[in-house]
Amino acid sequence: MSSTESTYNLLIAELKEIAVFGSVNSLLNWDERTQMPPRASAYRAEQLSAMAKLLHQRFTAPRIGEWLSQLEAGPLDADATVNVRETRREYDRAVKIPESLVQEEARVSVLSQQAWATARKNSDFAAFAPWLEKILPLKLQRAACLGSSARPYDALLDEFEPGETAANVAKTFESLRDPLVELIGRIKDSPNKPPVEILHRRYPAAAQELLSREAAKAVGFDFEAGRLDVSVHPFCSGIGPSDTRMTTRYNENHFGDAFFGVLHETGHGMYNQGLKAEHFGTPLGSAISLGIHESQSRMWENLVGRSRSFWTHFMPRARELFPEAFNGVGDDQWYRAINAVRPSFIRVESDEATYNLHILLRFELEQAMMSQSLSVADLPGAWNEKMKKYFGITPPDAAHGVLQDIHWSFGAIGYFPTYTLGNLYAAQFFETARAELGDLDSQFAKGDFAPLLGWLQRKIHQQGQRYSAGQLVKEVTGKSLSAEPLLRHLRKKAAEIYGI
Amino acid sequence: MSSTESTYNLLIAELKEIAVFGSVNSLLNWDERTQMPPRASAYRAEQLSAMAKLLHQRFTAPRIGEWLSQLEAGPLDADATVNVRETRREYDRAVKIPESLVQEEARVSVLSQQAWATARKNSDFAAFAPWLEKILPLKLQRAACLGSSARPYDALLDEFEPGETAANVAKTFESLRDPLVELIGRIKDSPNKPPVEILHRRYPAAAQELLSREAAKAVGFDFEAGRLDVSVHPFCSGIGPSDTRMTTRYNENHFGDAFFGVLHETGHGMYNQGLKAEHFGTPLGSAISLGIHESQSRMWENLVGRSRSFWTHFMPRARELFPEAFNGVGDDQWYRAINAVRPSFIRVESDEATYNLHILLRFELEQAMMSQSLSVADLPGAWNEKMKKYFGITPPDAAHGVLQDIHWSFGAIGYFPTYTLGNLYAAQFFETARAELGDLDSQFAKGDFAPLLGWLQRKIHQQGQRYSAGQLVKEVTGKSLSAEPLLRHLRKKAAEIYGI
Repeated sequence: MSSTESTYNLLIAELKEIAVFGSVNSLLNWDERTQMPPRASAYRAEQLSAMAKLLHQRFTAPRIGEWLSQLEAGPLDADATVNVRETRREYDRAVKIPESLVQEEARVSVLSQQAWATARKNSDFAAFAPWLEKILPLKLQRAACLGSSARPYDALLDEFEPGETAANVAKTFESLRDPLVELIGRIKDSPNKPPVEILHRRYPAAAQELLSREAAKAVGFDFEAGRLDVSVHPFCSGIGPSDTRMTTRYNENHFGDAFFGVLHETGHGMYNQGLKAEHFGTPLGSAISLGIHESQSRMWENLVGRSRSFWTHFMPRARELFPEAFNGVGDDQWYRAINAVRPSFIRVESDEATYNLHILLRFELEQAMMSQSLSVADLPGAWNEKMKKYFGITPPDAAHGVLQDIHWSFGAIGYFPTYTLGNLYAAQFFETARAELGDLDSQFAKGDFAPLLGWLQRKIHQQGQRYSAGQLVKEVTGKSLSAEPLLRHLRKKAAEIYGI
Repeated sequence: MSSTESTYNLLIAELKEIAVFGSVNSLLNWDERTQMPPRASAYRAEQLSAMAKLLHQRFTAPRIGEWLSQLEAGPLDADATVNVRETRREYDRAVKIPESLVQEEARVSVLSQQAWATARKNSDFAAFAPWLEKILPLKLQRAACLGSSARPYDALLDEFEPGETAANVAKTFESLRDPLVELIGRIKDSPNKPPVEILHRRYPAAAQELLSREAAKAVGFDFEAGRLDVSVHPFCSGIGPSDTRMTTRYNENHFGDAFFGVLHETGHGMYNQGLKAEHFGTPLGSAISLGIHESQSRMWENLVGRSRSFWTHFMPRARELFPEAFNGVGDDQWYRAINAVRPSFIRVESDEATYNLHILLRFELEQAMMSQSLSVADLPGAWNEKMKKYFGITPPDAAHGVLQDIHWSFGAIGYFPTYTLGNLYAAQFFETARAELGDLDSQFAKGDFAPLLGWLQRKIHQQGQRYSAGQLVKEVTGKSLSAEPLLRHLRKKAAEIYGI
């Protein structure tokens, strides 16, 4: 074995051992949000803080830097090149963050999440504000450690979407915004309203859970290697190889929150399950970015899950499970109802089109908070103002407004834009899949989702971090990221649903 | 601050940090048995093995030995004396076990538990035998590391019941065995049979869960700091301060498996919840021994939960929850049914009296395995022979025999005798509580369990490891451990139920 090979083996073994502790950390997080007794949160903060310290110590050990330097002198094969390149990127970031900050972030974010959950339940922004006041300086401190000349916001965004900048995101979003606002305007003016009241009938939670599980399984989620639970805020966690856990929440007076939520998390889950297990813990076995992750969830939720052909397959079962709600509902009415475009308060329950305005709002507010031009005290007002501006509506309370999302409570600032990036990636990937895989709709109508999933596994999941997000889009679709595929998709839907 | 004080503070801080990782380990174990997807078990073994290695490394670090030596030179106050003495005991044991063995035990026991669960489901001893063949040499190896001249079995027993030896346990058990066998014989010959068929009616799982939760809460389990879940083998885990999790399993064709099982785990759970949180991770915040732990579970399960006064309080609610099963059942019939003494196959479902014969059987078999006079291949035969000898019955299959208990699958050999020790401790404590607390029965009949729980908290839980098990019994009851209180209790019950 050459000295390069043996150094590489040392690095990989160490990364995999660190990943074991990382996966334990993920389990602590999952447990905290789904299982943990309420009074255990203070000690959970200690546990997470100790694990964060351990992880940080192990990953920033000088020997990793030394191994990387040796390996960078080469020669390396293609796989090793990826693992070394991406480990270097992570390593260089990690060594800039002091251990004390890592621990403090871990500790505060657990307590803050608990405070948020209670504050959201009581719709009480004042109860959460002091925690956000603690979170923001920690994030500014992190950005200061990471960034040299970069804007603080960019330093944080880069952690979720490597290589992205606020300026570049803003440019992409702009090419989407005006056509989108124009389209939503025309939809609003259309007299042709879908029968959305169908969705507000009574849908018993047990039957919702059953249909959600059946759909997740049918599209390809492996329940032998995963779970579905209930949590305040839905999420999906890839805890380890063969251990992917997703959550949802049931609203018995609305079809969709849970069902499309589960399809969404299933998309994330299948990305995790599609990563190569033998590379777990190394860049080749890791997801590229949150935007690419989101492209998988949004594809299954919207491009597949809200398609007519998907429901050709699932309608009979849905009618069986919800005989009362579906009484007198035709296939076409159902299809129109689940594709209605309407202003709404809650991001995760919003439609494909307006969703992106929810993101724009958060993207603008969190940039303002990071540049310190918006104070925590002024945040609820700023939120409501933007709701008025983009949607023409005002949230009835903080739970339907500024408190709805968990992200800021655990310090995830710079995270939201990856959601709209995900929508854009998804639409562009899906156009290519359609072109390469023949008649996807007739496959979906037969309940056959394997060709699409297999294509995503080969083209995306199994590649790990071989490519950057931008490179991957080019590699898979032959073109750079553009807003056009999403706009084409939304316009086609609008034509079908609203006759415009 | 004196140098002793500052050394002591260093030791306590380190113990508490190690305890954080220990609590993470407990969570991994709990999750494995209650939540983990089946295909995740191989990686869970890696996680547990890595945590075991980490814990062992941290706890056996030479500096802990150095701190202990400095502290042993004194002077120390009473609390510090306990923490130093018990940490020394643990430390001296831990440094004798090589890290490789700790890791291998952790890895094998996860896989072995999974194999046991499947083997038990299929009643297939051959599928579990290879795992037991792996476990036994690991235990012999552990015993060899620990013991100097001690018998291997004693070295293992001492880990669960510090200071105990097989010879001493055998002596105590002997003073119990003959009177017990004589009593069970007289019960068997009594024509006066309790109406046990009542217990075999249909008891819907949801209602069983409701009653179990209500009873656990009523006696004092804090669900804000704990949970109740379902697992193949019921257990209780004190994961951390304010995080105590217990499990059960529901059998819809039998009342009692779940209900008394939950009361049992509640007893364990309340011991965990009664430990002083500020001492978590140190001997003063830890349980004394498995026998003392079991004394708490058996007290609430049997001495309280099968008493007439307990059911004076709970009968109305039980009648409400199980209207069909309780149709025509009088209070006296119920009391007699739940106190019936009968030979049975399953330890955890057996009555107060025969339970101890189940333990005797296991105690004898595991000593034989450790002295290598009994091979794994011969184990099922030996089990069935002893069942015939002690109970006069032969298990219909391995699931009702040798495969019923999880313990050996995770290497817990020397653990079973602590169950009967627990019964003995419980009866002796309870006699004293009765003498000191006035009319316990009229308190129970009113649903007031706080005086008993408060007494246990003060006398036992809050003492941590201040006393050894033997000392504690003397401290609390004024006498050494004896089989008499348990025999008095069983004879009194037999007189009530069987008129003998």
